[in-house]
Amino acid sequence: MRIIVDAMGGDHAPAAPLEGAVRAVRELGVQIVLCGDEKQINAIAREQGYSMDGIEIMHTEEVITMHDTPTDIVKAKENSSMAMGLKALREGKGDAFVSAGNSGALLVGATMLTRRIKGIQRPAMAPILPTADGHAILMDAGANVECRPEMLLQFAMMGSVYMEKVMGIKEPKVGLINNGSEECKGRALEQQTYALLKNSDLHFYGNIEAREVPSGNCQVLVTDGFTGNVVLKLYEGLGSFFAKKVKAMFTGIGKIGALFIMNKLRTFRDSMDYKKVGGAVLLGIAYPVIKGHGSSDGGAMFHAIRQAKTCVDGKVVETITEALAAQKLRSRQQSES
Amino acid sequence: MRIIVDAMGGDHAPAAPLEGAVRAVRELGVQIVLCGDEKQINAIAREQGYSMDGIEIMHTEEVITMHDTPTDIVKAKENSSMAMGLKALREGKGDAFVSAGNSGALLVGATMLTRRIKGIQRPAMAPILPTADGHAILMDAGANVECRPEMLLQFAMMGSVYMEKVMGIKEPKVGLINNGSEECKGRALEQQTYALLKNSDLHFYGNIEAREVPSGNCQVLVTDGFTGNVVLKLYEGLGSFFAKKVKAMFTGIGKIGALFIMNKLRTFRDSMDYKKVGGAVLLGIAYPVIKGHGSSDGGAMFHAIRQAKTCVDGKVVETITEALAAQKLRSRQQSES
Repeated sequence: MRIIVDAMGGDHAPAAPLEGAVRAVRELGVQIVLCGDEKQINAIAREQGYSMDGIEIMHTEEVITMHDTPTDIVKAKENSSMAMGLKALREGKGDAFVSAGNSGALLVGATMLTRRIKGIQRPAMAPILPTADGHAILMDAGANVECRPEMLLQFAMMGSVYMEKVMGIKEPKVGLINNGSEECKGRALEQQTYALLKNSDLHFYGNIEAREVPSGNCQVLVTDGFTGNVVLKLYEGLGSFFAKKVKAMFTGIGKIGALFIMNKLRTFRDSMDYKKVGGAVLLGIAYPVIKGHGSSDGGAMFHAIRQAKTCVDGKVVETITEALAAQKLRSRQQSES
Repeated sequence: MRIIVDAMGGDHAPAAPLEGAVRAVRELGVQIVLCGDEKQINAIAREQGYSMDGIEIMHTEEVITMHDTPTDIVKAKENSSMAMGLKALREGKGDAFVSAGNSGALLVGATMLTRRIKGIQRPAMAPILPTADGHAILMDAGANVECRPEMLLQFAMMGSVYMEKVMGIKEPKVGLINNGSEECKGRALEQQTYALLKNSDLHFYGNIEAREVPSGNCQVLVTDGFTGNVVLKLYEGLGSFFAKKVKAMFTGIGKIGALFIMNKLRTFRDSMDYKKVGGAVLLGIAYPVIKGHGSSDGGAMFHAIRQAKTCVDGKVVETITEALAAQKLRSRQQSES
């Protein structure tokens, strides 16, 4: 298996992507195509004494930064490491793509340069949230600010496939994020999506209020990209807010006690760290595309590459394609009957 | 000052509203009109040995429950304690109203039976969220699922008045909840609201991402009622999720250590407890209306009554009315120039 990695994306590029790639070759037995500046990459490899076995460098000179507008990837920055990597993916030079760079550019690039799965209306950017007893995928967390009910139905299906194939959850429960649990709740979007989900063959839990999101009652959380973005970022913001509050609680309790508590807190923070689960997955693209967090270190890049490998192993794209065909057949039968 | 209290609203009615009322008379020097079942109220008062000085009972027999639909308050349940209290408020029999009952019914009742401030398009249900260094008011948290930009501008103004007059914050900063900090971000609603806020005389901070909400950078958080509901409920849900996680971290560490930590955790939980700040305020109604949490105990009801008193003392309704007039004048001058 060959994973294409954007060596120039993220705050710690190219050191972090390179470190993740070296570790992935050694521990996962994959091959890596690193898109980026050959000189910079080789300098770090020499400095760190990395073996470059299993790693091929695809030399690129341009870089999409966080300040570029998303559409630059198909215009001014069409030769950037991210653009070249996505084109290589489309040409079959790799099985999946990983980048910790500009999310908007990755979304535009994946859609325009790699292309969607046929029949998918819009791809979704889907992070994995920690819950009381596991994880939940959030569909969509920002790719599509305005959504139609049919898009949300596809998000629910793609999220279910991911949780089953990659996270190993049998019959994942799908919850529609809403301002109440009753069927009549929400805007027109939620009311119409409710009807679609109820009639689908997914494991529909019903509406889920935001209060219940961390409970783990649903493993697939469906919402539009605006609301999903608020959920994701509040998860992040409140996580560090609470960690700081708890830390402040225990100041001035003596050195040994503090050490003990700080260790406990670190374990807690780690359990909340979505970087350990990998990055966000861009679902709906014809190949697995993983978006690592901008602040990814070598370890986080390694986990993102492992996540890409699990997507390939689990045939996520193939299963979504089959599910789409089944869904189409089903709705044709329904309209005929 | 006379505060009208719905004695039959909330999970612990009428005991909790009565306890709150008795304490409010004693500690705040207000008079209370309790709407509810006289027999039940008097039985508890006797049992608890409460002095009923300063408390007048307005006998009602019907009760709006959590299962009633909001519009029942003007139909089948027009003689309920909540409806009768809101009508009494309109008739000037009290200066403010407090209820821990059905939120939807309270919203409909306050709008239909008590009436809005003239010129306010829609009232907003506004809870107070704890932040790193204080509190922020969330406008709107569920009253208006779909909003227009002009409504959000009014929410911003009303929230600013509340934070200044009731919470004592000078020049509170107004943040528009959005999926990015740049001016161009969001849906049409956010883009148009941004322009209105930028041209207003409020202290506009700009867009605020949900990640930044707990930071305390803004004291007035503006959004539509659907998104606000998600923010409020995720705050609640993640709060208890983190508290449980932290508690679990410290199990099996011996009795004295556990006691020490549980005490610390209680302090933490209390600092996160919005019930201590009172309830959510329904802004835009011609009198102060406070919605206590459904699970309010006597203490929470007391704090909600105190909050109602502070609204009256701070002339919140009068200030909103003046600000509306100034806003109108300002926009007339702008369109003329």
